[in-house]
Parts: sequence; structure tokens; C-alpha cells
Amino acid sequence: MTDRVLILGGGFAGIAAAKRLAGRGLQVTLLDQHNYHLFQPLLYQVATGELLGEAICTPLRRILSQGGIAFRLGRVETIDLQQRRVTLADGTALSYDYLLLAMGTVTNFFGNQQLARTALDIKGLGAAERARSTVLLALEQASQVQEPILRKAWLHFVIAGGGAAGVEFCAALLETLQALVPSEYPELAPQEIEVTLVHGGERLLPGFASKLQQHAAQRLRHLGANLRLQTHVQRYDGRQVHCDSGPVLLAKTLIWTAGVTANPVLESLPVPKGYGGRLLVDDYLRLPDHPEVFVLGDLALRPEGYPCPQVAPFAMQSGHYAAEVVLQLVRQRPLPAPFVYRDLGSMSVLGRFDAVCQLGKTNWTGYPAWMMWLLLHIYRIIGARNRLRALLDWSGDYLRRSPAVQLIRARVEEGDACNKKVR
Amino acid sequence: MTDRVLILGGGFAGIAAAKRLAGRGLQVTLLDQHNYHLFQPLLYQVATGELLGEAICTPLRRILSQGGIAFRLGRVETIDLQQRRVTLADGTALSYDYLLLAMGTVTNFFGNQQLARTALDIKGLGAAERARSTVLLALEQASQVQEPILRKAWLHFVIAGGGAAGVEFCAALLETLQALVPSEYPELAPQEIEVTLVHGGERLLPGFASKLQQHAAQRLRHLGANLRLQTHVQRYDGRQVHCDSGPVLLAKTLIWTAGVTANPVLESLPVPKGYGGRLLVDDYLRLPDHPEVFVLGDLALRPEGYPCPQVAPFAMQSGHYAAEVVLQLVRQRPLPAPFVYRDLGSMSVLGRFDAVCQLGKTNWTGYPAWMMWLLLHIYRIIGARNRLRALLDWSGDYLRRSPAVQLIRARVEEGDACNKKVR
Repeated sequence: MTDRVLILGGGFAGIAAAKRLAGRGLQVTLLDQHNYHLFQPLLYQVATGELLGEAICTPLRRILSQGGIAFRLGRVETIDLQQRRVTLADGTALSYDYLLLAMGTVTNFFGNQQLARTALDIKGLGAAERARSTVLLALEQASQVQEPILRKAWLHFVIAGGGAAGVEFCAALLETLQALVPSEYPELAPQEIEVTLVHGGERLLPGFASKLQQHAAQRLRHLGANLRLQTHVQRYDGRQVHCDSGPVLLAKTLIWTAGVTANPVLESLPVPKGYGGRLLVDDYLRLPDHPEVFVLGDLALRPEGYPCPQVAPFAMQSGHYAAEVVLQLVRQRPLPAPFVYRDLGSMSVLGRFDAVCQLGKTNWTGYPAWMMWLLLHIYRIIGARNRLRALLDWSGDYLRRSPAVQLIRARVEEGDACNKKVR
Repeated sequence: MTDRVLILGGGFAGIAAAKRLAGRGLQVTLLDQHNYHLFQPLLYQVATGELLGEAICTPLRRILSQGGIAFRLGRVETIDLQQRRVTLADGTALSYDYLLLAMGTVTNFFGNQQLARTALDIKGLGAAERARSTVLLALEQASQVQEPILRKAWLHFVIAGGGAAGVEFCAALLETLQALVPSEYPELAPQEIEVTLVHGGERLLPGFASKLQQHAAQRLRHLGANLRLQTHVQRYDGRQVHCDSGPVLLAKTLIWTAGVTANPVLESLPVPKGYGGRLLVDDYLRLPDHPEVFVLGDLALRPEGYPCPQVAPFAMQSGHYAAEVVLQLVRQRPLPAPFVYRDLGSMSVLGRFDAVCQLGKTNWTGYPAWMMWLLLHIYRIIGARNRLRALLDWSGDYLRRSPAVQLIRARVEEGDACNKKVR
């Protein structure tokens, strides 16, 4: 009987595994709750209106049908490791011989319910578009308000988290606002806009070389950001941001990029876990007691502190590797060498024509780093049409300084009560 | 004191009026419930995934700021003609010296609550994107269903209304499905797909020359549509479409294009109205008892049966004309000649490389008509970037037969119960 491989999740890891398994005589199914693959590293640009949401999405069926892999739209409800069965929200049960867990992470509000309700995040297409609408709606609201305190609150944008997502979003947001407000909001003065980045660590961009961290901080300050380092957001009621140090920040918009945790479906799995709900894996990216279950991408954690960064290259390498192991097992051949992550470097873009970039021991900043980022991201975006769309949007964004998308997808009144309600 | 002109609505009529009034020393405000101008004639293409939604939207502030016209995001709650005051949903009151009503129409379900709940429409950006998601979700649902009756219902798409919107949507839907299903849905057979167009009149495309009506019907039949003419949809429970003649149609998706009615805010206005809730106007497009209030575009109706088609050229001409009258009144000069609609012809596109087009007494069909449609629509889309985006999407749609957008913006389970819930 043909072996059945079930891949849960169509992100970088799931797609990499699917592509490797295509055309090998296995019965492969990829399941995702959306029908598109999302190029997550550019989500922050959707949130600032620099890119159309659709420009970073590729239909999963288009990717998979070329390799004869079945696609299933659905949401996982439970995973039964003993019975080797996955049950979906609509009640269907899918059995497997090999299971690849690649559902990634969700935003982590660390159990703070109030924060989860009032803050925005930019993880996922819907969230990023919601963030864009909320920011633009705040400008509209401020345009109608004369009362100074309220007006200030509408024009103050607080970002929690100084990792790559927070830093990139912060730079892009400042540039978008600085381009938009003077030309299209005569009711507002550009200097009224305030952007504050709150970061728990001593330096931005943890994991980057210290020179690059400094460059990023300088660049954000140059663009006009207030940096609050070694500070954690503790409470937010939709208007006042309370931190563990320093004064209360008055802001109607808080964007949370300060943590992720494993997909909640995995919570109930009776297997060893590490920080952020990630699953501990053996040398072959498998669950220790379930050699038929592989853990990919952001979900995988090695017990010995072996590096498992939650980035696209790790996800792709892990997906490719797990597929390789499955193929060897199916053919009853010896396993390949244990998984080793090949670090391709890290980069973080800091708005127009600036970035930091770290390749091995070489560090790049400024325009050369930005060019590398641009080429790499254009190359990586799946599909010729989406590449052209992104280039088109960026050429407008960067050259003419007008954001590609300014659509507010929300009813006006909903902006009043609570940011989170904006659709 | 400077005269205050308030324009309600940023469609073709409102924008035309605003542009004419720009830079004339008046205090002009344009209000809309969205922050973008929508190129409505192409909405059906968003609904079939041929165009990105954002490609047919232009930020109103970008259009208006060039002319020094104020923009106000908001929803009208009431209009007080005596006090010359418009109250918004957020409680703000706006006073005016001249009022231009240009809020257009909404879908008319003729009081049928069940239909309003269960059927989809494609009027508005959100509705069109929702229709796209619903159609694609139906394909996903059908892929998982073996039970023949239910599977048939998921794969049957019924369109009510054979005017331009219904006919254009029908042709585009058939082409999209015929391109998508064979290449990406191995679970489905192309011949399982069924599209039925239900139309009350004897012929499709009322108002077009009879030769063109015949061409449209032939073309739709050639593409594979079932035409049910002289038939009205009466009830729909989300699964069974009951008509006033012929058998019940089994279909999980019903798209309603069979009627529009004036924006409901106008219902309570104590002024004479005609069919579809439209407001009767004098020779100068004004309310008979309120010469300071102008009625534009789809809302205007002349008592003598003078033609007031609900199309973009009429809207633009009426907006331009009303602005002209306002300027004459402000300058205390004589009124211009009464409004006359200059008919520029009509066209309706029938999928790839086919259209019908009527200019004066000349009728065009097929490829030449389609080329005229293409050039005209590219020319009319506001903004160079959106023009390029549309060209890019169309080149893919028409040449490679792959739709530009296949995103399902919906949670899977919501598709089960009732189409309308899909977001």
C-alpha cells in the first residue's frame, strides 16, 4: 500500500517538504486553514500599506498541483499520535503513515487577555490588513478631533517588540506616515505624529552583531522614533500603555510584535516541549517517541540548545530535510546524517534604501545591505506575477514616496470603541 | 462668508463635482463612508478573481488633496433639509449652503429578508471579495464531498439578473472556473460545474440593441451557461432556488444582481420619489423645493421619463453639471441651460476577447468591441499605478488563463452554514 504523508501547514516548511516529496509515488496531502501560501517576511509591508496583501500570497493549489500533491482546506482540531489520525474542525478524520507538523506559531500575548483584546498584531494576512486600516483610521479620527489629549492619543503609535518584525514595521510606518500626512492630511501637522518602540532587551534586533544593532537604533531615531529599551508593556486598555518602567504612554494604537508561541492545537499533545510551546525533536527532527512524526520550522526545538531560529531559511531547510528522511524510511534505506542548520545570515530592512545584513562574519549596512535585501526578496517571492506586482508597488513606495495601498477596510464607527474590532 | 458645499459620496458623480469645484474659492467637503473611490464597473472582475480589489480603488484623499477639497470619512445618519444640516453616525453635524447627494444605490432584495440573508451580491468592494471567497470555497467544499446531491449543489452557481452586471459576471465566472478546475482541482470534473443565469426579461441586457442582446445570449450559452429567461427568483434558503416558473434549482451559491435601490438614508427625506427610491429632480438636477440641493448619478430621476441611466457616464456628467450650477449661483449669474445627458453608448464585456458595444447607431461585437472596452477601461482607471496593476492582472487572466486572485478570505467552517457569513 502507498504510504500516506500528511503535511499540516503550507508555510515555508510545509511547501519545502511537499516539493521534495512530489512525484515520488507517495500519497501526499497538504492541509492548511488558508488556501494560500503567505510570504510572511513581508507582512509588515502589508501592515504599512507598502504592498498589496494579495501580492505576497500564492494559491497553494497552484503550487501543489504541479507536483501531484493533494490540497485540503481545513483546520486541525485534534491530533491523535497513537491512532495516527488528525481530526479537522468539520469532523473529517485523516489518517497518516508520516506526519509533518508545520503549522508555525501565533502571536503570544503571554496570557494577558486585555492585551490580546486591545492590541493589534501583524501576523497573518488579515491581521496585517487590519493593522493598516487601524493606522489609517487613526489619522482620520485625529483629523476630526480638536481636543488635544485625544488627538495626541490618536496620533501616537506604539510598537511593542524590537525584533526584526517590530524594527522593520517601525521604520516602514514612520516613512509611510511622513509621506502621507503632509500631502494628504491638511488637518494634521507632521510633527504631531509620534511613534514609540518599546523593547524588553538592552539592544534592538537580538541575535544581530552589535554594530548592526547600533545602526538600527540610530536609523530608527533618525526617522523620528522614540526608543524605550529595557522596558516591557504590561497593560493596555485601548488608550493607556502601562510599562514596567517609565511614564504611561497615551496611544489609541498598540501593535504587538513581542512574542510568538506554537500553534495552540499542539498544546494538548503529550510530548516534551520547550519555551514558546515548541516541540523537542531528535537529531532527525522527529518526536522522540514517534519516529513517524516530524516537527518543522518555527515549531521545532533541539534540547541541547542547538540553534533553531524561527526564520524562513530554517523552515525551508527543515522541510526539505524531513522529506528526505521520509523518503529514506519509505525506501527502507539508512537515515541521512543528522539535521544541521546552515545559517545563511540575517537581514532586516530599515525603510527606504537602508538595511542591516549579516552574512557569516561580514556585516553590511545602508544602501548595499538594502540592495541585497531587495534582490533576495524579489527572487524569493513565488510567482512571476507577484514579483512584478511587488516591484510595481515598491517602485511607487520608494521613488514617489506614496504608499501602494491606503484602503481602510472598516466601518467608521468601529474605530471609536476599540481598535481590535476594525475589520 | 465663503459658501460651504457638501458632497455626499465619492463615486463617479461626487468626484466629478469635486474636481469642477476645486480651486474656486468655495469651502468644499466630500464625505464618504469609505476612504477610497471605487471603479464600480470592474467590480464583477474582483468577484471572479480577475482583478485585485485594491487595483480598482483610489484613495479619496489623494484625489481631493490636489484640489484643496476637504475629505471627511463618515456615514450619514440623517439629512435635515430645513436646517440644511447633515448628521453623521458619530454624532457630528455638518452644515451646508449647497448639498450634492451622490451616495448612489444599494442592492435591492425587494424586501425579501431571507434572500437578503442567503444570497450574495457584488456591489461594493467587500461584497465582491466575499463573492470571490464564496465561489472558491464552494470548490473546496465540493472537493471533499462524495454525496452526489450535495456535491452538485456546491458546484452549481446561480446568478439572478441579466443586466450588464449579471451578464459580465456570468461570462467571467464561467471562464475563471473553466481555467481553474482542470488545472488545480483534480477532485472535480469540469463538466460537473454548472452556471445558471435567471433573468426576468425576455432578453438579456435590457437597453441594448436586439442584435447585441442575441450575441450576448449566444456567447453565454457557448461558454456553457444555462439561461432561464422570463423567470424570477422568489425564494432561496441557501440551497434551493425557487423561481416563479420552471423547476427548483439546487445550488449553494446564489449571486444577486437583479436590482438596486437608492441609499436607505434617503428613505426618510420628505421629497417626491420615483421607482427604486430615486429622487425626482427639476431641469437643473435640483430637488423641486430645495434649489440648494442637487441629486446626482444613480439617485436622480426626471419626472417626464427623461433618460437617467444608472451608469458611470451619467454620474460624471451630472456631477460636473451640478458643480457648474453651484458656481453660477454663487457668482449670482444666470443658470446654465437645463441638464441634458449625452449618451456615449454602452458596452458589456463577455469574457476573453468578446464584448458587445453600442455607440450611437453603430453596434460592435466580438474582438473589436472587446478591444474598445479594454482601452476605455484602462484609460478610465484612475492612477498610473492602478492602470499598470490592472494590465498586469489582465495579461495573466487573458493570456495565461489563470485568475489573478484566488485568495479565500474566510474561515473554512463558515462556508458550511450560510454563504453570507463568509468574510
